[in-house]
Amino acid sequence: MNQTNQMNQMNQIDQINQIDAETIAIGTELLVGGRSDSNSLFLAEELGKLGIAVRFKSVVGDERLDIVAAIHTAVKRAQIIVMTGGLGPTVDDCTREAVASATGQRLGRRKDALEGLTARLAQWGRIPNAAQLRQALIPSGAIVLKNPVGSAPGFCLTWKKALIVSLPGVPREMEEMVLQEVLPLLRTAHESSGKPPRAPIVRQVFHTFGLAEADVDAKLQGLIPTGTPIDVGLLASPMGVLVSLTTKGNRSAEEKDPDFLQKLAQDVRVRLSDWLFAEGRDTMEEVVGRDLAKRGLMLAVAESCTGGLIGHRLTQVAGSSAYMDRGVVCYSNRAKTEMLGVPADLIALRGAVSKEVAAAMACGIRERANVSVGLSVTGIAGPGGGTEAKPVGLVYVGLDDGTGRPIAREFRFHGDRNVIKQRSSQAALDVLRRWLLNEAKRDVRDLREKRD
Amino acid sequence: MNQTNQMNQMNQIDQINQIDAETIAIGTELLVGGRSDSNSLFLAEELGKLGIAVRFKSVVGDERLDIVAAIHTAVKRAQIIVMTGGLGPTVDDCTREAVASATGQRLGRRKDALEGLTARLAQWGRIPNAAQLRQALIPSGAIVLKNPVGSAPGFCLTWKKALIVSLPGVPREMEEMVLQEVLPLLRTAHESSGKPPRAPIVRQVFHTFGLAEADVDAKLQGLIPTGTPIDVGLLASPMGVLVSLTTKGNRSAEEKDPDFLQKLAQDVRVRLSDWLFAEGRDTMEEVVGRDLAKRGLMLAVAESCTGGLIGHRLTQVAGSSAYMDRGVVCYSNRAKTEMLGVPADLIALRGAVSKEVAAAMACGIRERANVSVGLSVTGIAGPGGGTEAKPVGLVYVGLDDGTGRPIAREFRFHGDRNVIKQRSSQAALDVLRRWLLNEAKRDVRDLREKRD
Repeated sequence: MNQTNQMNQMNQIDQINQIDAETIAIGTELLVGGRSDSNSLFLAEELGKLGIAVRFKSVVGDERLDIVAAIHTAVKRAQIIVMTGGLGPTVDDCTREAVASATGQRLGRRKDALEGLTARLAQWGRIPNAAQLRQALIPSGAIVLKNPVGSAPGFCLTWKKALIVSLPGVPREMEEMVLQEVLPLLRTAHESSGKPPRAPIVRQVFHTFGLAEADVDAKLQGLIPTGTPIDVGLLASPMGVLVSLTTKGNRSAEEKDPDFLQKLAQDVRVRLSDWLFAEGRDTMEEVVGRDLAKRGLMLAVAESCTGGLIGHRLTQVAGSSAYMDRGVVCYSNRAKTEMLGVPADLIALRGAVSKEVAAAMACGIRERANVSVGLSVTGIAGPGGGTEAKPVGLVYVGLDDGTGRPIAREFRFHGDRNVIKQRSSQAALDVLRRWLLNEAKRDVRDLREKRD
Repeated sequence: MNQTNQMNQMNQIDQINQIDAETIAIGTELLVGGRSDSNSLFLAEELGKLGIAVRFKSVVGDERLDIVAAIHTAVKRAQIIVMTGGLGPTVDDCTREAVASATGQRLGRRKDALEGLTARLAQWGRIPNAAQLRQALIPSGAIVLKNPVGSAPGFCLTWKKALIVSLPGVPREMEEMVLQEVLPLLRTAHESSGKPPRAPIVRQVFHTFGLAEADVDAKLQGLIPTGTPIDVGLLASPMGVLVSLTTKGNRSAEEKDPDFLQKLAQDVRVRLSDWLFAEGRDTMEEVVGRDLAKRGLMLAVAESCTGGLIGHRLTQVAGSSAYMDRGVVCYSNRAKTEMLGVPADLIALRGAVSKEVAAAMACGIRERANVSVGLSVTGIAGPGGGTEAKPVGLVYVGLDDGTGRPIAREFRFHGDRNVIKQRSSQAALDVLRRWLLNEAKRDVRDLREKRD
């Protein structure tokens, strides 16, 4: 089969109204090792934009026969199959052989694949060795997909009315190849089929903190009118409860009311009110970072039980040096006194895990750093160190803005050490977010008073 | 089919020599959302101990028909199928219905399931509502699996010479139910089959830092004699390169030489020498933590580009307050001078990202905390802030032990901001680990000199 034929075949696949996709992640480490596959989530999002729903995901080890079995299963239930992994130079990497054997194609070295591979290695000052040359082996008739990042080319071919795409497993390589090669190919095939574009599958995500899953569920009761082609998803994690609205790629519903998803999203925002801290890919640290930067405020953080996690999260954001001045991790009581000036008497009287010490820590770091806002956390992350009066999971967050009205809030979390650290860091950043919200409300009030 | 029949059926499955397993993770969030499934990794490890290999993993959304399709596929290629998720109280949760429909069984409320559910909710001071009562619906003839943690019971049944196990998706519930219910059931069934126990599938893992994947590969050349039933896996991540040895559960090979895996593991240790920093589930922070505690040393950390990540990692370990005194995140130059006494002149002369500043930071934090060891990191995490002379990814690690011979090491990393932070934190902890190794060697030398 030549490449023009491949495109014709793709057109035929595209005649189907509802196109389903399946991803196949290849690698023994993904199956039984410590590594989870995340490529399929990227693929689901990008394919969804073209109205293609990922309905199945398979994971198989580096075993040729198992990969063949996975391909045979996939072609029966999906029209687009995206395989990731197993295209490296070692003998473990057997996706090429598996696809050839599953589809009855011959594997041969392809000129275009070899040229790309050689050019890439030349950039790195190397010439391909025998093992690397295996990466230029492509099933006959397949379209070669260029790899703009790494050395292994991908390929795609049609078989049994399904398009089989094979990409490297390295996320950065896979992502670029999807954006630069696979999606344009799918778009071209669809356009040349003469059919109207499919409605995209849109997924809108809302992040809340401070409500239990059941409470979020209660707030969303009756949100979706019966019959509306929208899925509502709820997912609880230490970072809060996530709400998702997903369309089913149903054009007729959107044609009736093109804004129906936006109206629902607006309703969700009203219902979740200030429990909603971010949407989409935004994180809590990005939200508070943007707000601090906008207001020109500098922040300093004093952490006890979170051990540096809040500082780490704040500095995950590029450009955070604009508002993040410094942090201290004062794990010992001595450090709290020496670094933050928390009176040793106060620690002795109230305990290191107390409202009073949280407030003193926030005030201490703010004054010593000479910044606008000081944020602090002190708590018992466990598993040891808890008492009946102060159990594992008891956490205090402090915030001091120099107005003489420090904030100190108590939280009682459940979970293991890591979960309690994660929740504590989220709770601290949420206290900061709510303080910033109040500042914004005060601005509006001040403005109104001035105007009156 | 009654429960005695189920056990008889399980015995028949157990007559097969090689038993393969498949995991099916259920949940739309796992398929297209931001969440990766990790349950299958736990299942692979535990089933492997019984000599059962997980060969396929499937992920499907909360769609009854898709779950049915996944079950039908799985029974064709596996004898043990473990499904996780979809047993909650909401209408989304349709695993019960899917299993009943796939296997042609009737779904009915079961007394033992209902009692467990009611007792659990009573513990929490609640009585089951209509939605929660759905969780007591079980396919007829299935064995009910108790949930010692949450409310949803699981169940298992045999169909088409395969055992289908259905468990909740919450990892803590799933794990306890596997340990307390599923594994004992599998063991009993195997024992009553009268066959000798299967050889376990053992996976041994080695963690290295500082070598490229190709270099680790080169060091392991010729490790495995041809024909040995062992898989060698290599996996690179920002935390280093992981090496795994996995047996295939082949008893005859082990009978020839019961120590063959241990001998190979010893060979791996020799070949990887001091690049090997941990084995199994151990992490770098646990390894250095144990060493610090053993030597009674207190540590203080000064972080710039890692922003608190090193402190966060060190304090992930329970009991870390025994050796972690404090940390500072000195993101601004002013903070480096004020908090650590790094001379402003030195920063002006050499730049904040320099060997000299790294050493001064380590010395400053050690002196101010009055501890045995000071560890520091300064670097450019990007994406902004790089120059031709000091590109993004340039990182210096400093260590000061008060002997007047500070360590300062240069690293040049590639990757995005998060990857550079991760690698930098790992590099800093590795510098500390190697310093601790040298201390241990010095002890041995001192001891030998004393003896001579």
